[in-house]
Amino acid sequence: MITQLESTTSILITGGTGFVGSHLVQHLQNLGYNNIHVTTFSAHPDVVLKNLQADHVHTIDLTDPTATKALFEKVRPEFVYHLASLSAVGSSFDQVQTVVSNNLSLQISVLEAVRVVVPTARVLVISSGEVYGKSLQDGVPIAEKNLLKPVNPYAVSKAAQELLSLSYYYSYQLEIVVARPFNHIGEGQTDAFVVPAFAKQIVAVERGQQTEVRVGNLEKKRDFLDVQDVVAAYYLLMQHGVVGEVYNIASGTSISVRSMLTALTDQAECAIPIVQDESRLRVVDTDSITGDASKLRALGWKPTHDLLQTLARILKYWRNQ
Amino acid sequence: MITQLESTTSILITGGTGFVGSHLVQHLQNLGYNNIHVTTFSAHPDVVLKNLQADHVHTIDLTDPTATKALFEKVRPEFVYHLASLSAVGSSFDQVQTVVSNNLSLQISVLEAVRVVVPTARVLVISSGEVYGKSLQDGVPIAEKNLLKPVNPYAVSKAAQELLSLSYYYSYQLEIVVARPFNHIGEGQTDAFVVPAFAKQIVAVERGQQTEVRVGNLEKKRDFLDVQDVVAAYYLLMQHGVVGEVYNIASGTSISVRSMLTALTDQAECAIPIVQDESRLRVVDTDSITGDASKLRALGWKPTHDLLQTLARILKYWRNQ
Repeated sequence: MITQLESTTSILITGGTGFVGSHLVQHLQNLGYNNIHVTTFSAHPDVVLKNLQADHVHTIDLTDPTATKALFEKVRPEFVYHLASLSAVGSSFDQVQTVVSNNLSLQISVLEAVRVVVPTARVLVISSGEVYGKSLQDGVPIAEKNLLKPVNPYAVSKAAQELLSLSYYYSYQLEIVVARPFNHIGEGQTDAFVVPAFAKQIVAVERGQQTEVRVGNLEKKRDFLDVQDVVAAYYLLMQHGVVGEVYNIASGTSISVRSMLTALTDQAECAIPIVQDESRLRVVDTDSITGDASKLRALGWKPTHDLLQTLARILKYWRNQ
Repeated sequence: MITQLESTTSILITGGTGFVGSHLVQHLQNLGYNNIHVTTFSAHPDVVLKNLQADHVHTIDLTDPTATKALFEKVRPEFVYHLASLSAVGSSFDQVQTVVSNNLSLQISVLEAVRVVVPTARVLVISSGEVYGKSLQDGVPIAEKNLLKPVNPYAVSKAAQELLSLSYYYSYQLEIVVARPFNHIGEGQTDAFVVPAFAKQIVAVERGQQTEVRVGNLEKKRDFLDVQDVVAAYYLLMQHGVVGEVYNIASGTSISVRSMLTALTDQAECAIPIVQDESRLRVVDTDSITGDASKLRALGWKPTHDLLQTLARILKYWRNQ
């Protein structure tokens, strides 16, 4: 329960119309916050946000430092959830310059805007469990103390965003907390990611629009969370995360992509033929990824969603598209 | 002693007309190599390179991927010493976007050119001891296993260059070795760095062009090497460094900036008044930096220069300007 004063706290969510951003908006609204601003790159965001005032949705290119500073001067956020980034891992191999340049430029714009305009704001920087890369060992949940050895350009860009953000904590004492979410799934995620790619295709087969589901490597294992558990962690870290610290957000167990596919096809309305597609195999792929979120759990967080129900929600989402 | 075949090996040094680059050219020429190409950003490089063929000096903006690829197709280097980067730490606080964007863009151009044109070339990527930042502990020489916690934007850009380079080793098995040199000094270094800044001012006082030497924080301690010991390490790492590995290049002891200043003024031709200048103090500065180069020493390297003689050479250099 938040007080009247707190409910009007100015909150800015960059990338707030994206997959995770829209779930975070919903989570904060459910908690009673009513002064939530979001940024979106596109004038026509994919996700329609309910109950947001029109003048609280800001179409902006965050790689533009002048526009970003102007936005911060207008909104003067006390809390900044910084989610905006180009985020598809697979395509980042073909667009190294674009992904790295975009993700670093917008990170600098946001940090500079905080430093100059709202230096006492709390800022949660969303990185990714992908930053560990080659430091991962099969079957061993990885903790935050391990070296960053990112394998793909997206992961490099996230690692660089972290380093840059923490440098602003070291240099200017900005109130930066870094989150490293592992895989997360839910309604609204684009089919550039594996679970929605499955779900979308399954629905297409159900509708007779295609005859089979095309898949990549099914043996790799990932640490999946419901996006709602992830945004709950973001809120907790914003309230209680220690500045200058980094927190994994993970279930602590890894599940094969094959298991996720099977759980989805079990819920399908017809038999689903599966075909392996070489073009969906990445250049490099880590076999098994598990995150150790002990540090976050010590703040009181734990996952509360059953992934089978999450997958059911995701199928329902795609059936409604 | 290298063989005739080896002496014609195609070598590319990015940033080869810079401070360290020009010393590296000299070192390789002394070893008998005669097919050395260098890149320079400026059409009128500061350092004049002797004995280089005019068509081996390439004026190029390495942030341009097309031009970089064309250069690699022309030179087809078997060895790439990648030194080019914007490198002044102090000014990087005012030019975050420029430093980060430039250093990442050129790193991507070079890595992509190697991947596409000369995937079997050996590449030595020059990072910096600055990447350790907040991981440094006073008086403890730092080894490569420590977390990267860069404090200034330049150091962030070097850390990101490393991560990106190693990702190309993980993904494409490029023959990448990373060097982390600590402070190094010698003829040709710009007065954006502390020792040449002292030397240049001392010479100006000797000439009656100014009355005092203006200095920043004299108590900080750094791990200084003669640039000639550094380029010897580069050559050794190019020959014997293990791909995918990172090597500190450091003396293993730290010396206060005050000691360096005193050693220089002791060699001056007149008394040198010293004045503390607030504008020369950085926003953040690590008190003491020492590198542990055990991993490099295990390959057979050790410093061979007496820094007092190095400082004498530097004073002589500035007196000749």
